[in-house]
Amino acid sequence: MDIYFLGTGAGMPTKERNVTSIALTQYEERGSFWLFDCGEATQHQVLRSPLKLSKLEFIWITHLHGDHIFGLPGLLSSRSNQGGTSPLTIFGPKGIEAYIRTSMQISQSRLNYDMNIVEISEGLVYEDEQCTVETALLDHRIDSYGYRIQEKPKPGSLDIAKVKSYGLLPGPQYGLLKNGTDVTLPEGTVIRSSDVVGPPQPGRIIVVLGDTRPCANVLRLAQGADLLVHEATFAQELAALAREFYHSTTSEAAHAAAAAGANQLVLTHISGRYADEGTDLLLEEARRIFPNTQVASDHSSYPIPLRAKEEK
Amino acid sequence: MDIYFLGTGAGMPTKERNVTSIALTQYEERGSFWLFDCGEATQHQVLRSPLKLSKLEFIWITHLHGDHIFGLPGLLSSRSNQGGTSPLTIFGPKGIEAYIRTSMQISQSRLNYDMNIVEISEGLVYEDEQCTVETALLDHRIDSYGYRIQEKPKPGSLDIAKVKSYGLLPGPQYGLLKNGTDVTLPEGTVIRSSDVVGPPQPGRIIVVLGDTRPCANVLRLAQGADLLVHEATFAQELAALAREFYHSTTSEAAHAAAAAGANQLVLTHISGRYADEGTDLLLEEARRIFPNTQVASDHSSYPIPLRAKEEK
Repeated sequence: MDIYFLGTGAGMPTKERNVTSIALTQYEERGSFWLFDCGEATQHQVLRSPLKLSKLEFIWITHLHGDHIFGLPGLLSSRSNQGGTSPLTIFGPKGIEAYIRTSMQISQSRLNYDMNIVEISEGLVYEDEQCTVETALLDHRIDSYGYRIQEKPKPGSLDIAKVKSYGLLPGPQYGLLKNGTDVTLPEGTVIRSSDVVGPPQPGRIIVVLGDTRPCANVLRLAQGADLLVHEATFAQELAALAREFYHSTTSEAAHAAAAAGANQLVLTHISGRYADEGTDLLLEEARRIFPNTQVASDHSSYPIPLRAKEEK
Repeated sequence: MDIYFLGTGAGMPTKERNVTSIALTQYEERGSFWLFDCGEATQHQVLRSPLKLSKLEFIWITHLHGDHIFGLPGLLSSRSNQGGTSPLTIFGPKGIEAYIRTSMQISQSRLNYDMNIVEISEGLVYEDEQCTVETALLDHRIDSYGYRIQEKPKPGSLDIAKVKSYGLLPGPQYGLLKNGTDVTLPEGTVIRSSDVVGPPQPGRIIVVLGDTRPCANVLRLAQGADLLVHEATFAQELAALAREFYHSTTSEAAHAAAAAGANQLVLTHISGRYADEGTDLLLEEARRIFPNTQVASDHSSYPIPLRAKEEK
């Protein structure tokens, strides 16, 4: 599982940074990747990345500003033209469906896969056997959501050698043991599940926020995140500008990561004004407050390591 | 006056060619440039070109397929963010207005300039003191227009030395002479306009076609063009495929240029299948029929020289 940044700029593309799109790869976990936002030319960035559109499972839109959605119609069409046939679901604020349907209809674009669109509100927006996705509204000029993806814990692995040492041959009882049930052998010996099954693998928490000023819901969503993706459009000296345009600074993002007890912070949505002078100052400002910080660049990626298993 | 190719691919972007957009620069003539079509990431291509969006005067959309329009919302927004304030008019088939207005409205994009949208039908769609623009429907899966831009001739220049040799000092009579009126001096001498004004500068004809199969309107629009931009999605051996998908081959485009008596042919909208093998074969096929042919690549440009003045 990695976070891969396809676009890390703010508002408009520059030669250095495309507008926002962020991939969460889950090849081992789900055989797929997810996208958060889809600014114009995201499909062009995908062409220059290891990602394949046919493996795209979900798109999560944080808000409807053009630099976060104008790449959708082209990417959806190209996914079909490139042989994508599995269903794709797009989650986003109210209005996302009219935007997509109008664009596809007027351009007479046909898709060879089922496209579902879900207009979200706050709360639990998705759940399956492996994870939950929860949203909350942030503080931006228009409705802007953050997404908290929480993996469910995975049962520990069965110690096959130990089970065999009890004389139990492979069969349905292995599954019972793995799922927490004790097994009694014909001669009366009880094999306790807790003796032969390792500790569960705790799930990870990944949080990707839309554009926002600092607000309580940032902290609520980011609580205990393994990796927090937070916008930092401006350096701290431009805090007034950040406030005026409903954005955050480096320091504000770092304070949020610290207060939420996150493990790692990656800053993105970097203003074009830092193209020349670089982002060293941005990184330094944030690390003073939250040392485990990175500033994303286009095509940078960050692994999200498994959590340590708890000793029983 | 130059034709500058921002995107020369077909259907989807590749690493080599972006989707369609073609600029007609008219800095000396009008202080502006025009765009024909605006596929996704056209604004990204503009960033890597000598063009400035603030100088964009008109956008002419040939047809509504996504690879020709999905760059509009982003380019229109960025033109405003980059300080474009002069009015911009977009011409295109019925549906273009709903596409643009919906995209701008849902994304809450605000423009600091007047944007006008004109939904066209066949015939004369624009005229001013310098030029006319005429359209006709081609043969594609959906309505696809070609555009014929015809410059009006410019009056010849006044031979100042010769006028002075008659003893006429600068004044309003210079203007009369230039516009074809003879002038009688107080002592009775007649200065004939035709004696002191050079031959007029004939206007040029530039023709940019949307996607099409060969058809009569291609020939009608391209008649006597100084420069004809014609799609050539496929090599001649794939003529059946071209027909099936309502496109043209190299040879078909070259035959059209020859039959229309065009001066120069530039082929574009090249299928991604030629990325590896290159376009030498395409060029060769077309030149066999119409020698003055080029195959456009992204960021290639072609000057459109002034026509020779006719001797009086």
